Amino acid sequence: MDDRLASDLRSAIRTIPDYPKPGIMFRDITTLLGDARAFRRAVDELVHPYAGAKIDKVAGIEARGFILGGAVAHQLSAGFVPIRKRGKLPHRTVSVAYALEYGSDEIEMHADALVQGERVVLVDDLIATGGTATAAVKLLRGIGAEVAAACFIIDLPDLGGAERLRAMGVDVRSLIAFEGH
Amino acid sequence: MDDRLASDLRSAIRTIPDYPKPGIMFRDITTLLGDARAFRRAVDELVHPYAGAKIDKVAGIEARGFILGGAVAHQLSAGFVPIRKRGKLPHRTVSVAYALEYGSDEIEMHADALVQGERVVLVDDLIATGGTATAAVKLLRGIGAEVAAACFIIDLPDLGGAERLRAMGVDVRSLIAFEGH
Repeated sequence: MDDRLASDLRSAIRTIPDYPKPGIMFRDITTLLGDARAFRRAVDELVHPYAGAKIDKVAGIEARGFILGGAVAHQLSAGFVPIRKRGKLPHRTVSVAYALEYGSDEIEMHADALVQGERVVLVDDLIATGGTATAAVKLLRGIGAEVAAACFIIDLPDLGGAERLRAMGVDVRSLIAFEGH
Repeated sequence: MDDRLASDLRSAIRTIPDYPKPGIMFRDITTLLGDARAFRRAVDELVHPYAGAKIDKVAGIEARGFILGGAVAHQLSAGFVPIRKRGKLPHRTVSVAYALEYGSDEIEMHADALVQGERVVLVDDLIATGGTATAAVKLLRGIGAEVAAACFIIDLPDLGGAERLRAMGVDVRSLIAFEGH
Protein backbone atom coordinates (compact mmCIF):
# COMPACT_ATOMS: atom_id res chain seq x y z
CA MET A 1 0.00 0.00 0.00
CA ASP A 2 1.37 3.43 -0.79
CA ASP A 3 2.05 6.02 1.91
CA ARG A 4 -0.51 8.40 0.48
CA LEU A 5 -3.34 5.89 0.88
CA ALA A 6 -2.24 5.03 4.43
CA SER A 7 -2.18 8.71 5.27
CA ASP A 8 -5.65 9.26 3.73
CA LEU A 9 -7.12 6.35 5.68
CA ARG A 10 -5.44 7.47 8.88
CA SER A 11 -6.91 10.94 8.59
CA ALA A 12 -10.39 9.42 8.07
CA ILE A 13 -10.21 7.81 11.54
CA ARG A 14 -11.43 9.81 14.52
CA THR A 15 -9.49 9.54 17.76
CA ILE A 16 -11.54 9.93 20.95
CA PRO A 17 -9.31 10.55 23.98
CA ASP A 18 -10.13 8.85 27.30
CA TYR A 19 -12.77 6.52 25.85
CA PRO A 20 -14.02 4.16 27.18
CA LYS A 21 -11.79 5.04 30.14
CA PRO A 22 -9.07 7.55 31.06
CA GLY A 23 -5.78 7.04 29.22
CA ILE A 24 -7.27 5.16 26.27
CA MET A 25 -7.12 6.78 22.82
CA PHE A 26 -10.12 5.18 21.12
CA ARG A 27 -9.74 4.79 17.36
CA ASP A 28 -13.22 5.34 15.93
CA ILE A 29 -13.56 3.90 12.44
CA THR A 30 -17.16 5.07 11.93
CA THR A 31 -15.83 8.25 10.31
CA LEU A 32 -13.84 6.12 7.85
CA LEU A 33 -16.87 3.89 7.14
CA GLY A 34 -19.03 6.95 6.53
CA ASP A 35 -16.55 8.44 4.08
CA ALA A 36 -17.55 6.74 0.81
CA ARG A 37 -14.11 7.07 -0.76
CA ALA A 38 -12.14 5.99 2.31
CA PHE A 39 -14.46 3.02 2.92
CA ARG A 40 -14.18 1.90 -0.68
CA ARG A 41 -10.40 2.16 -0.69
CA ALA A 42 -10.04 0.40 2.66
CA VAL A 43 -12.15 -2.56 1.49
CA ASP A 44 -10.36 -2.70 -1.87
CA GLU A 45 -7.01 -2.71 -0.09
CA LEU A 46 -8.11 -5.52 2.24
CA VAL A 47 -9.33 -7.54 -0.75
CA HIS A 48 -6.41 -6.87 -3.07
CA PRO A 49 -3.95 -9.61 -1.96
CA TYR A 50 -6.63 -12.30 -2.38
CA ALA A 51 -7.98 -11.35 -5.79
CA GLY A 52 -7.76 -14.57 -7.78
CA ALA A 53 -6.79 -16.66 -4.74
CA LYS A 54 -9.00 -19.54 -3.65
CA ILE A 55 -10.79 -18.12 -0.62
CA ASP A 56 -13.92 -20.04 0.36
CA LYS A 57 -15.12 -17.97 3.27
CA VAL A 58 -14.59 -14.67 5.00
CA ALA A 59 -15.13 -14.79 8.77
CA GLY A 60 -16.09 -11.49 10.41
CA ILE A 61 -15.93 -10.78 14.12
CA GLU A 62 -19.01 -9.12 15.67
CA ALA A 63 -19.86 -6.32 15.27
CA ARG A 64 -17.57 -3.97 13.30
CA GLY A 65 -15.91 -6.94 11.58
CA PHE A 66 -19.33 -7.68 10.05
CA ILE A 67 -19.35 -4.37 8.15
CA LEU A 68 -15.92 -4.90 6.60
CA GLY A 69 -16.20 -8.68 6.33
CA GLY A 70 -19.49 -8.51 4.43
CA ALA A 71 -17.97 -6.20 1.85
CA VAL A 72 -14.77 -8.26 1.59
CA ALA A 73 -16.70 -11.54 1.19
CA HIS A 74 -18.91 -10.09 -1.53
CA GLN A 75 -15.91 -8.70 -3.35
CA LEU A 76 -14.09 -12.04 -3.21
CA SER A 77 -17.25 -13.98 -4.15
CA ALA A 78 -16.78 -15.91 -0.93
CA GLY A 79 -19.32 -16.93 1.70
CA PHE A 80 -19.51 -15.00 4.95
CA VAL A 81 -19.25 -16.60 8.40
CA PRO A 82 -20.30 -14.57 11.47
CA ILE A 83 -18.26 -15.06 14.63
CA ARG A 84 -20.46 -13.84 17.46
CA LYS A 85 -20.58 -13.29 21.16
CA ARG A 86 -22.03 -16.18 23.10
CA GLY A 87 -25.73 -16.98 22.79
CA LYS A 88 -26.53 -15.10 19.60
CA LEU A 89 -26.48 -17.83 16.98
CA PRO A 90 -29.60 -19.94 16.53
CA HIS A 91 -28.15 -23.32 15.53
CA ARG A 92 -25.55 -25.70 16.99
CA THR A 93 -22.32 -23.82 17.75
CA VAL A 94 -18.68 -24.37 18.61
CA SER A 95 -17.08 -21.91 21.02
CA VAL A 96 -13.73 -20.77 22.39
CA ALA A 97 -13.24 -18.84 25.63
CA TYR A 98 -10.57 -16.17 26.01
CA ALA A 99 -9.27 -14.04 28.86
CA LEU A 100 -10.18 -10.40 29.33
CA GLU A 101 -8.47 -7.89 31.61
CA TYR A 102 -11.00 -8.93 34.24
CA GLY A 103 -12.72 -12.28 33.72
CA SER A 104 -13.28 -14.01 30.40
CA ASP A 105 -15.50 -14.03 27.36
CA GLU A 106 -16.53 -16.51 24.71
CA ILE A 107 -17.04 -16.37 20.95
CA GLU A 108 -19.02 -18.82 18.88
CA MET A 109 -19.75 -19.80 15.34
CA HIS A 110 -22.10 -22.33 13.81
CA ALA A 111 -20.54 -25.79 13.84
CA ASP A 112 -21.55 -26.28 10.20
CA ALA A 113 -20.39 -22.85 9.01
CA LEU A 114 -17.28 -24.32 7.41
CA VAL A 115 -16.15 -27.69 6.19
CA GLN A 116 -12.75 -29.28 6.65
CA GLY A 117 -10.06 -27.75 4.43
CA GLU A 118 -11.88 -24.58 3.47
CA ARG A 119 -9.68 -21.51 3.20
CA VAL A 120 -10.78 -18.55 5.29
CA VAL A 121 -9.79 -14.91 5.64
CA LEU A 122 -10.53 -13.49 9.10
CA VAL A 123 -11.59 -9.81 9.17
CA ASP A 124 -11.97 -7.30 11.98
CA ASP A 125 -11.63 -3.55 12.25
CA LEU A 126 -8.77 -3.45 14.76
CA ILE A 127 -6.23 -5.71 16.44
CA ALA A 128 -5.09 -4.73 19.93
CA THR A 129 -4.04 -7.49 22.36
CA GLY A 130 -5.47 -10.06 19.94
CA GLY A 131 -7.62 -11.89 22.52
CA THR A 132 -10.63 -12.18 20.25
CA ALA A 133 -8.63 -12.72 17.06
CA THR A 134 -6.51 -15.56 18.49
CA ALA A 135 -9.71 -17.17 19.84
CA ALA A 136 -11.27 -16.81 16.38
CA VAL A 137 -8.28 -18.53 14.75
CA LYS A 138 -8.62 -21.43 17.24
CA LEU A 139 -12.33 -21.62 16.48
CA LEU A 140 -11.73 -21.78 12.72
CA ARG A 141 -8.86 -24.25 12.94
CA GLY A 142 -10.83 -26.32 15.45
CA ILE A 143 -13.31 -27.28 12.74
CA GLY A 144 -10.57 -27.93 10.22
CA ALA A 145 -10.54 -24.67 8.28
CA GLU A 146 -7.30 -23.22 6.98
CA VAL A 147 -6.79 -19.60 8.06
CA ALA A 148 -5.26 -18.03 4.96
CA ALA A 149 -4.87 -14.63 6.62
CA ALA A 150 -6.20 -12.24 9.23
CA CYS A 151 -6.84 -8.64 8.09
CA PHE A 152 -7.48 -5.48 10.02
CA ILE A 153 -7.85 -1.80 9.21
CA ILE A 154 -5.90 -0.81 12.34
CA ASP A 155 -3.06 -2.45 14.25
CA LEU A 156 -2.03 -1.24 17.71
CA PRO A 157 1.43 -2.88 17.59
CA ASP A 158 2.37 -1.92 21.15
CA LEU A 159 -0.36 -4.25 22.41
CA GLY A 160 1.17 -7.25 20.62
CA GLY A 161 -1.91 -8.88 19.09
CA ALA A 162 -0.51 -9.10 15.57
CA GLU A 163 2.66 -10.72 16.93
CA ARG A 164 0.56 -13.26 18.85
CA LEU A 165 -1.29 -14.18 15.67
CA ARG A 166 1.98 -14.48 13.73
CA ALA A 167 3.34 -16.77 16.46
CA MET A 168 0.36 -19.05 15.64
CA GLY A 169 1.51 -19.11 11.99
CA VAL A 170 -1.14 -16.69 10.75
CA ASP A 171 -0.41 -14.25 7.92
CA VAL A 172 -1.45 -10.89 9.40
CA ARG A 173 -2.18 -7.73 7.44
CA SER A 174 -3.26 -4.30 8.60
CA LEU A 175 -3.63 -1.03 6.73
CA ILE A 176 -2.61 1.44 9.44
CA ALA A 177 -0.72 1.28 12.73
CA PHE A 178 -1.16 3.57 15.70
CA GLU A 179 1.56 3.60 18.35
CA GLY A 180 0.51 3.61 22.00
CA HIS A 181 -2.62 2.13 23.47
CA MET B 1 -36.41 -10.40 -9.47
CA ASP B 2 -37.15 -13.66 -11.25
CA ASP B 3 -38.90 -16.55 -9.52
CA ARG B 4 -35.90 -18.81 -9.92
CA LEU B 5 -33.65 -16.47 -7.96
CA ALA B 6 -36.26 -16.03 -5.21
CA SER B 7 -36.57 -19.79 -4.98
CA ASP B 8 -32.78 -20.26 -4.84
CA LEU B 9 -32.44 -17.66 -2.08
CA ARG B 10 -35.36 -19.14 -0.16
CA SER B 11 -33.81 -22.57 -0.21
CA ALA B 12 -30.53 -21.13 1.11
CA ILE B 13 -32.30 -19.98 4.30
CA ARG B 14 -32.50 -22.39 7.22
CA THR B 15 -35.71 -22.49 9.24
CA ILE B 16 -35.32 -23.35 12.93
CA PRO B 17 -38.65 -24.29 14.50
CA ASP B 18 -39.47 -23.06 18.03
CA TYR B 19 -36.54 -20.64 18.25
CA PRO B 20 -36.11 -18.51 20.31
CA LYS B 21 -39.42 -19.70 21.80
CA PRO B 22 -42.17 -22.23 21.03
CA GLY B 23 -44.29 -21.39 17.98
CA ILE B 24 -41.67 -19.17 16.31
CA MET B 25 -40.19 -20.34 13.00
CA PHE B 26 -36.80 -18.63 13.06
CA ARG B 27 -35.45 -17.75 9.60
CA ASP B 28 -31.68 -18.21 9.85
CA ILE B 29 -29.85 -16.32 7.11
CA THR B 30 -26.37 -17.53 8.15
CA THR B 31 -26.72 -20.42 5.70
CA LEU B 32 -27.44 -17.94 2.91
CA LEU B 33 -24.50 -15.73 3.94
CA GLY B 34 -22.20 -18.75 3.97
CA ASP B 35 -23.24 -19.84 0.48
CA ALA B 36 -20.93 -17.74 -1.72
CA ARG B 37 -23.27 -17.77 -4.70
CA ALA B 38 -26.46 -17.03 -2.74
CA PHE B 39 -24.76 -14.25 -0.76
CA ARG B 40 -23.41 -12.65 -3.90
CA ARG B 41 -26.76 -12.80 -5.65
CA ALA B 42 -28.67 -11.46 -2.64
CA VAL B 43 -26.34 -8.45 -2.33
CA ASP B 44 -26.42 -7.81 -6.07
CA GLU B 45 -30.22 -7.94 -6.03
CA LEU B 46 -30.37 -5.49 -3.10
CA VAL B 47 -28.01 -3.12 -4.93
CA HIS B 48 -29.53 -3.41 -8.38
CA PRO B 49 -32.32 -0.75 -8.16
CA TYR B 50 -29.83 1.89 -6.96
CA ALA B 51 -27.05 1.36 -9.48
CA GLY B 52 -26.44 4.80 -10.93
CA ALA B 53 -28.74 6.51 -8.40
CA LYS B 54 -27.35 9.15 -6.07
CA ILE B 55 -27.09 7.29 -2.77
CA ASP B 56 -24.80 8.97 -0.25
CA LYS B 57 -24.99 6.49 2.60
CA VAL B 58 -26.15 3.01 3.45
CA ALA B 59 -27.38 2.61 7.02
CA GLY B 60 -27.18 -0.90 8.47
CA ILE B 61 -28.96 -2.07 11.60
CA GLU B 62 -26.86 -4.00 14.13
CA ALA B 63 -25.83 -6.77 13.79
CA ARG B 64 -26.91 -8.76 10.73
CA GLY B 65 -27.71 -5.55 8.85
CA PHE B 66 -23.99 -4.72 9.14
CA ILE B 67 -23.01 -7.74 7.03
CA LEU B 68 -25.38 -6.92 4.18
CA GLY B 69 -25.13 -3.15 4.57
CA GLY B 70 -21.33 -3.17 4.37
CA ALA B 71 -21.44 -5.08 1.09
CA VAL B 72 -24.24 -2.89 -0.32
CA ALA B 73 -22.44 0.34 0.65
CA HIS B 74 -19.19 -0.80 -0.94
CA GLN B 75 -20.99 -1.85 -4.10
CA LEU B 76 -22.79 1.51 -4.37
CA SER B 77 -19.60 3.45 -3.50
CA ALA B 78 -21.54 4.96 -0.62
CA GLY B 79 -20.51 5.54 2.98
CA PHE B 80 -21.76 3.19 5.68
CA VAL B 81 -23.59 4.33 8.81
CA PRO B 82 -23.98 1.90 11.73
CA ILE B 83 -27.27 2.03 13.65
CA ARG B 84 -26.54 0.39 16.98
CA LYS B 85 -28.12 -0.63 20.23
CA ARG B 86 -27.76 1.95 22.97
CA GLY B 87 -24.36 2.65 24.49
CA LYS B 88 -22.14 1.15 21.79
CA LEU B 89 -21.07 4.21 19.80
CA PRO B 90 -18.15 6.26 21.11
CA HIS B 91 -19.10 9.78 20.01
CA ARG B 92 -22.16 12.02 20.43
CA THR B 93 -25.32 10.18 19.39
CA VAL B 94 -28.98 10.73 18.58
CA SER B 95 -31.40 8.02 19.65
CA VAL B 96 -34.98 6.81 19.19
CA ALA B 97 -36.82 4.50 21.58
CA TYR B 98 -39.28 1.87 20.36
CA ALA B 99 -41.67 -0.55 22.01
CA LEU B 100 -40.95 -4.26 22.37
CA GLU B 101 -43.44 -6.98 23.25
CA TYR B 102 -42.41 -6.40 26.87
CA GLY B 103 -40.74 -3.08 27.62
CA SER B 104 -38.81 -0.92 25.20
CA ASP B 105 -35.45 -0.57 23.49
CA GLU B 106 -33.40 2.20 21.95
CA ILE B 107 -31.25 2.55 18.85
CA GLU B 108 -28.61 5.16 18.23
CA MET B 109 -26.38 6.59 15.58
CA HIS B 110 -23.68 9.22 15.62
CA ALA B 111 -25.19 12.70 15.41
CA ASP B 112 -22.66 13.63 12.71
CA ALA B 113 -23.06 10.42 10.68
CA LEU B 114 -25.14 12.18 8.05
CA VAL B 115 -25.71 15.73 6.91
CA GLN B 116 -29.02 17.34 5.97
CA GLY B 117 -30.34 16.19 2.62
CA GLU B 118 -28.17 13.11 2.16
CA ARG B 119 -29.92 10.17 0.53
CA VAL B 120 -29.78 6.93 2.48
CA VAL B 121 -30.71 3.31 1.86
CA LEU B 122 -31.58 1.44 5.07
CA VAL B 123 -30.55 -2.25 5.13
CA ASP B 124 -31.41 -5.12 7.45
CA ASP B 125 -31.72 -8.87 7.04
CA LEU B 126 -35.39 -9.19 7.96
CA ILE B 127 -38.48 -7.10 8.59
CA ALA B 128 -41.06 -8.49 11.03
CA THR B 129 -43.17 -6.04 13.07
CA GLY B 130 -40.89 -3.22 11.93
CA GLY B 131 -40.21 -1.81 15.40
CA THR B 132 -36.50 -1.33 14.80
CA ALA B 133 -36.85 -0.31 11.15
CA THR B 134 -39.47 2.39 11.82
CA ALA B 135 -37.29 3.71 14.66
CA ALA B 136 -34.33 3.75 12.27
CA VAL B 137 -36.30 5.77 9.71
CA LYS B 138 -37.23 8.30 12.42
CA LEU B 139 -33.58 8.47 13.45
CA LEU B 140 -32.41 9.14 9.89
CA ARG B 141 -35.15 11.66 9.11
CA GLY B 142 -34.60 13.33 12.47
CA ILE B 143 -31.19 14.55 11.36
CA GLY B 144 -32.51 15.59 7.96
CA ALA B 145 -31.55 12.62 5.81
CA GLU B 146 -33.80 11.45 3.00
CA VAL B 147 -34.62 7.74 3.26
CA ALA B 148 -34.53 6.64 -0.37
CA ALA B 149 -35.53 3.05 0.48
CA ALA B 150 -35.46 0.30 3.07
CA CYS B 151 -34.26 -3.11 1.88
CA PHE B 152 -34.46 -6.54 3.46
CA ILE B 153 -33.67 -10.07 2.43
CA ILE B 154 -36.78 -11.41 4.19
CA ASP B 155 -40.21 -9.94 4.80
CA LEU B 156 -42.66 -11.55 7.23
CA PRO B 157 -45.74 -9.81 5.78
CA ASP B 158 -48.16 -11.20 8.38
CA LEU B 159 -46.36 -9.13 11.03
CA GLY B 160 -47.03 -5.88 9.14
CA GLY B 161 -43.64 -4.16 9.39
CA ALA B 162 -43.30 -3.44 5.68
CA GLU B 163 -46.79 -1.91 5.66
CA ARG B 164 -45.88 0.28 8.63
CA LEU B 165 -42.81 1.55 6.77
CA ARG B 166 -44.86 2.20 3.64
CA ALA B 167 -47.37 4.17 5.72
CA MET B 168 -44.42 6.42 6.63
CA GLY B 169 -43.80 7.01 2.92
CA VAL B 170 -40.80 4.68 2.70
CA ASP B 171 -40.09 2.67 -0.44
CA VAL B 172 -39.72 -0.90 0.89
CA ARG B 173 -38.09 -3.81 -0.91
CA SER B 174 -37.53 -7.39 0.15
CA LEU B 175 -36.26 -10.39 -1.76
CA ILE B 176 -38.33 -13.16 -0.15
CA ALA B 177 -41.51 -13.37 1.91
CA PHE B 178 -42.38 -16.04 4.45
CA GLU B 179 -46.00 -16.34 5.55
CA GLY B 180 -46.71 -16.85 9.24
CA HIS B 181 -44.62 -15.66 12.15
